[in-house]
Amino acid sequence: MSTQRLHDLSRCCVHTITTKPWDIDTAVQRYAQEGIKGITVWRDALAGRDIQQTGRMVRDQGLEIVSLCRGGFFPHTTASGRQKAIDDNLRAIEEASQLGAPMIVLVCGADPAQPLEVSRQQIYEGIAAVLPQAASAQVKLAIEPLHPVYADTRSAISTLAQANDMAQLLGSPWVGVAVDVYHLWWDPALQTEIARCGRNGHLFAFHVCDWRVPTRHLLLDRGLMGEGCIPIRQIREWVEDAGFTGFHEVEIFSDEYWAQDQQVFLRQIKQAYLQHV
Amino acid sequence: MSTQRLHDLSRCCVHTITTKPWDIDTAVQRYAQEGIKGITVWRDALAGRDIQQTGRMVRDQGLEIVSLCRGGFFPHTTASGRQKAIDDNLRAIEEASQLGAPMIVLVCGADPAQPLEVSRQQIYEGIAAVLPQAASAQVKLAIEPLHPVYADTRSAISTLAQANDMAQLLGSPWVGVAVDVYHLWWDPALQTEIARCGRNGHLFAFHVCDWRVPTRHLLLDRGLMGEGCIPIRQIREWVEDAGFTGFHEVEIFSDEYWAQDQQVFLRQIKQAYLQHV
Repeated sequence: MSTQRLHDLSRCCVHTITTKPWDIDTAVQRYAQEGIKGITVWRDALAGRDIQQTGRMVRDQGLEIVSLCRGGFFPHTTASGRQKAIDDNLRAIEEASQLGAPMIVLVCGADPAQPLEVSRQQIYEGIAAVLPQAASAQVKLAIEPLHPVYADTRSAISTLAQANDMAQLLGSPWVGVAVDVYHLWWDPALQTEIARCGRNGHLFAFHVCDWRVPTRHLLLDRGLMGEGCIPIRQIREWVEDAGFTGFHEVEIFSDEYWAQDQQVFLRQIKQAYLQHV
Repeated sequence: MSTQRLHDLSRCCVHTITTKPWDIDTAVQRYAQEGIKGITVWRDALAGRDIQQTGRMVRDQGLEIVSLCRGGFFPHTTASGRQKAIDDNLRAIEEASQLGAPMIVLVCGADPAQPLEVSRQQIYEGIAAVLPQAASAQVKLAIEPLHPVYADTRSAISTLAQANDMAQLLGSPWVGVAVDVYHLWWDPALQTEIARCGRNGHLFAFHVCDWRVPTRHLLLDRGLMGEGCIPIRQIREWVEDAGFTGFHEVEIFSDEYWAQDQQVFLRQIKQAYLQHV
């Protein structure tokens, strides 16, 4: 492989959920101290806070806000459920705007009480409904395909091909895709589809972690980079060949790591980032 | 949907693993009593037994042996590991022949210590290595794509498209595919790929169960048909439109059901089969 190791943290971003036990003040302070340059803010970290002021606090510490996590969850069997989802996504766009986040990651949703094709149509309609607001707020929307293990309740968009199709169909410079190695590493079409979204100019985000062998838990057992079987550097090569120059976002959900000292964990993240991304 | 409900058990097959607490004598006797017409035998059920005699016992009870489960697991980082796998698959072909099973289901394998493409190449080579023996024993080999959640250690073949590609590449009437709704229901290309393997004459098997919402365990929480979110009847329609006339095989791994009275469970299976397949 020709791709070089990363030698600094200038493109390293950490998601607040990765260090879930910390509030956002602590997270921002510690990330900055450790030389991390980017942060993706989860909406739960903003609960009850002045969002504009929080955005200023983040920037004052020298961190760049990469995105707001997360919007989506558009499908529902009822029209009122779908309208609620649209309203919530409009709020997320407003929050991103206040925070100064240039992008929202969309976990698109799925309702197990209806066929996947119906959920996909509702996702299309949901994104289309909030797109004018996103464009006027200059907030990008990144469709994140989720691993097929989450097709029941979290995402009817399971592959990058589907996310690319959806982004093309919506045909807006404000809609693109997020590539997360955890969700997509198994896909034989991954390289081709990464190249495709690069060509189309809608490769908006790149998320990293690892797939543990064995995986203990469907949701909360993501690994630190290098701990599992995902060819992370290979996928980074494909993403960079596709023209991506953005942040590498570390997004780890792990009840095991959350139970540990988060400062120690953050240093492990830095080391794993430099060795394995 | 135009597909009719099933009105009898003439195409119902149960995998011995589904009623794991029963030995094969008990399973065969109870399946026959309940009017089930087919059985797929897992190799663990044959351990320490006279295989030819077991085959006669099954047929004497009026059951048709649909397949032997399972061969595969070809990928390994070492040549000796790969040779062991080939030897084991040759033994499986011999066992199928003795049992009178016309087919072996292949769970193809994956080694997390090497890239998926390498594992896929080794799967191709492994099947090619045992194919002459399968042909001369008149035992079909059915490549079963497994859900991407098993791409780390169980199968580098995650979609029906990949299984179809592999079967076409091997180009033998003795190699085809097994469609299991649990592994494939999420795939937007499923209908197209079912039609494709039908056209190619290599749609060999059809397995049913359901995807529970939520799923408690990665391996042992499969649901009874109707208990989850898989559009089983829709998929049966696609399979039958593709010309498939074989058995509908009930394959459920469930520590929950295994802990219950297996006779009660078997009656639940019959009911779920007639209502939801």
